[in-house]
Amino acid sequence: MRDRWGTVRLEAFSDGVFAIAATLLVLDIGVPASKFDDLWRGILDQWPSYLAYATSFITIGGLWLLHHGVFRRLAFADNVVTRLNLLLLMSVAFLPFPTRLVAEAIDMADAERAAVIFYGASLLTITLLTNAMWRYVARNRDLLEPGVSERDVKAVLDVTTPNVGFYVFVIALAILAPRAAAFGYLVVALLAVVRVHGDSAPDKGRNRPA
Amino acid sequence: MRDRWGTVRLEAFSDGVFAIAATLLVLDIGVPASKFDDLWRGILDQWPSYLAYATSFITIGGLWLLHHGVFRRLAFADNVVTRLNLLLLMSVAFLPFPTRLVAEAIDMADAERAAVIFYGASLLTITLLTNAMWRYVARNRDLLEPGVSERDVKAVLDVTTPNVGFYVFVIALAILAPRAAAFGYLVVALLAVVRVHGDSAPDKGRNRPA
Amino acid sequence: MRDRWGTVRLEAFSDGVFAIAATLLVLDIGVPASKFDDLWRGILDQWPSYLAYATSFITIGGLWLLHHGVFRRLAFADNVVTRLNLLLLMSVAFLPFPTRLVAEAIDMADAERAAVIFYGASLLTITLLTNAMWRYVARNRDLLEPGVSERDVKAVLDVTTPNVGFYVFVIALAILAPRAAAFGYLVVALLAVVRVHGDSAPDKGRNRPA
Amino acid sequence: MRDRWGTVRLEAFSDGVFAIAATLLVLDIGVPASKFDDLWRGILDQWPSYLAYATSFITIGGLWLLHHGVFRRLAFADNVVTRLNLLLLMSVAFLPFPTRLVAEAIDMADAERAAVIFYGASLLTITLLTNAMWRYVARNRDLLEPGVSERDVKAVLDVTTPNVGFYVFVIALAILAPRAAAFGYLVVALLAVVRVHGDSAPDKGRNRPA
Repeated sequence: MRDRWGTVRLEAFSDGVFAIAATLLVLDIGVPASKFDDLWRGILDQWPSYLAYATSFITIGGLWLLHHGVFRRLAFADNVVTRLNLLLLMSVAFLPFPTRLVAEAIDMADAERAAVIFYGASLLTITLLTNAMWRYVARNRDLLEPGVSERDVKAVLDVTTPNVGFYVFVIALAILAPRAAAFGYLVVALLAVVRVHGDSAPDKGRNRPA
Repeated sequence: MRDRWGTVRLEAFSDGVFAIAATLLVLDIGVPASKFDDLWRGILDQWPSYLAYATSFITIGGLWLLHHGVFRRLAFADNVVTRLNLLLLMSVAFLPFPTRLVAEAIDMADAERAAVIFYGASLLTITLLTNAMWRYVARNRDLLEPGVSERDVKAVLDVTTPNVGFYVFVIALAILAPRAAAFGYLVVALLAVVRVHGDSAPDKGRNRPA
Repeated sequence: MRDRWGTVRLEAFSDGVFAIAATLLVLDIGVPASKFDDLWRGILDQWPSYLAYATSFITIGGLWLLHHGVFRRLAFADNVVTRLNLLLLMSVAFLPFPTRLVAEAIDMADAERAAVIFYGASLLTITLLTNAMWRYVARNRDLLEPGVSERDVKAVLDVTTPNVGFYVFVIALAILAPRAAAFGYLVVALLAVVRVHGDSAPDKGRNRPA
Repeated sequence: MRDRWGTVRLEAFSDGVFAIAATLLVLDIGVPASKFDDLWRGILDQWPSYLAYATSFITIGGLWLLHHGVFRRLAFADNVVTRLNLLLLMSVAFLPFPTRLVAEAIDMADAERAAVIFYGASLLTITLLTNAMWRYVARNRDLLEPGVSERDVKAVLDVTTPNVGFYVFVIALAILAPRAAAFGYLVVALLAVVRVHGDSAPDKGRNRPA
C-alpha cells in the first residue's frame, strides 16, 4: 500500500515558499546613491528591475495557481509527489537569482544574452517539474479526490504541458534578441496566469458549504 | 457557470505576502558605522527610516484588514478576483522599494519631492486595485456569502473608495511640501486602520461557534 | 454591539510576522572577508552576533508563545484587540534593528551602552503592548471563550505583567554594565519562555478531539 | 496533569520558519559585477553557491518532512516539546549562516576546512534536537494520537537517530578532504529526504475523509 501524506501542511509549506520567493524580489530593486541628484530619472532608469520584478512575481503567482490547481485535486500525496514538490519549491525559490542577473545585465550585450537564457532555463526547469508532478498524478489515479473527472485531469495536463514549447521558443529568441526575449517572459507569465482556470465544482471541503 | 476558487489558500498566500512585505521593511533601517561614535545621535538621525517604517507597516496592516474584510464575505473567488488579487499582492510587495527611497531621500530637496510623490503613486495604485476588486465583487453578488447584506456591501465600498481622494490630496501636497506629505501618509495610514470595521456577525464558520 | 473579527486569519498573519522577524535575524550574522585567513577565530569573534541572535530569537519565540496563549482564549477579536495586535506586530518586526545595533556595538564602550539601552527599550515597548492587550481582554470578558476561568485570566495576566520590572532593572543595569545587561536579556528571554504555560484544557477545537 | 498546547499553531509557526529559512538561502547567491564581462563563466564559477544552496534547501526540506512526521502523530504538545521545538527552529533558522560560509570559503584551503566542519556541527545540532524531541515523545506516550502503533514509534526513531553517525563521519572526512565532505552533506541530505516515509494511515483528520 502506498505511503500517504496529508496535503494540508504540504500546501502550507509550499504557500510559504511561493509567497516568500515572490516578496523577496523587491529587495533587489534600488536606486544607487549617485542617482539621487535627478531621482525621477534614477527611478525611470531602473526599468529593467521593474520588468524583472513583474515577470518573476507574475510567473511565481501563475505557478502558485497551477500548484493550487494540482493539490486541490489530490486526496493525499505519496512519497514521489512529496519529493517532486520539494524539487519544485527549490527551483521556485532559486528564481530571485536569475531575476537579479537579468535586471543587472540588461545593458550589457553579451551578459544580457547569458542572463536571459539562464533565466529561461530556470523557468523551463520549473515548468518541467510541474508537468512531471501532474503526469505522475495522472498515472496514479488513487491519489486523486474521488470526484475528479477524466476531463479535469486532461485540463490540468493541458495547462501544465505546452508552456514547455513557449519557453524553448523564447530561449531561442534570447540568442538572437535578448531584450525582446526578456519581454517575452512577461508575456509568457501573463498568458500562464490567464490560462489557469478554477474549477466549476467547489473546492474540496475547505470552505463551508454555500 | 463561473469558475470557482476556494478562498482558504488564496488567503494563506495573501497573508504570507502581506506579512513578509511588512516584516522586510526593517531590513532597510540601519545606523552607518561612521555614526557609532555618538550612537544616540546616530539612532535619532534615523528618524526618516522610522517614519517610513511605521507608515508602510501600518499601511500594509490596514490593507490586510481591508483584504480580510473583503475575503471573509466571499463564498468563493472567480478568475477575475484571483487575478486582481495577484496584481494587488504584486503592488503591496513592491512597497518596500518606495519606502526605502523616501527614507533615503528625505534630506535632499528635489529627491525628497520625487520620492514622496512616487511613494504616493504606489499607495494610490494599491488603493485603486483594492477598490476595483470590491467593486467587481459588488457587481457579482453570487460571489458573496449568502448572509452578506446590502448595507454590508456599501460599508466595504465606503472604506475602500474615498482613500483615493486622500492620496490625490497628499500627492498634491508632496509637490509643495514633501516633508509634510511624508507625515501625511502616516496620518492616512492611521485613519485607514481606524476606519476598517469588523463585522457584527461572526466570521464565516472558521471559529468554532460560541 | 461589538464589532467582531475571527481570530484565524489574525493568527495566521501574526504567525507570519513572528516567524519572519525571527528568521530574518540570521541575515545580520557574517564573517568579514578579511577574517577568512583564520576562519575559526573569525567565527569565534562573531560571538556578539550569536548572543544577539539567540536573545532575539528566544525573545520572539517567547512572545509567540504568549500571543498563542492570549489568542486561543479569545472567542473573537474586536476593533481594539485588532489594532493593539497590529502595533504589537510592528514592534516585534522592528526588533531585528536593535538586535543588529547590539551585535555591532558590543566592543565600543559608549555605543555599547546606547545600543543595549535602546534594545531594552524596544523589548519594554513590546512587553507593555502584550500586557495592554491582555488587560483589555480581561476587562472585556465577552471576548473570551466561554470555558476560560477567572484563574486562567489571572495566570495570563501574571505571565504578561511582571516582565516589565525585569526589563526596567536590566535597562538600569545597562547604564552601569552594558555587557552584563546584554547577557541579562538572554536570561530574561529564557525565563519568559520557561514561564509561559500551556493549558490543562485542550485547545479550542482546532485539533480533533482525542 | 500535563500542560497542553494544540499543535495547529505550533505547526503554522514552524512551517513559517522552515519555509523562510529555506527561501532566504537564495539571497546569498550572486555574480560579482566584475564577472559580467564573461557572464557564462561568472555563472559557472558560482558552483559552490549552488552546491551550498541545494544542500541546505534539501536538508531543510528533509527536516520539515521529519517535523511533519513527528507532529502529525502528536495529539497535543506539552511544555517540553514546545521548548525543544523552539530550540530546533532556532538552529534551523541559523543554517543560512554556515551555508554562506561554505560557499564563500570553498576555494581557500584552511577556511574551507573550518567552514565545512562548522556547517557539519550545525547540522549535527539540528539532528540531535530532532532526535531528542522524538525520544521524549516516545517516553511520553500520552502525547501521541491514539492510533499510533509501537512499530510507528520505532520507525520515526529509526529515521531520526542514525543520521548522527553520518554527520560524525562527514565531519571527520571534512578534516581530511573538506571538498569531498561538502558534497557528502548533499548526499546526506538526499538520503534523509528519501528515508522519511509517509504513513499508511491517512493524516489525523485534516483532510476530508475520502
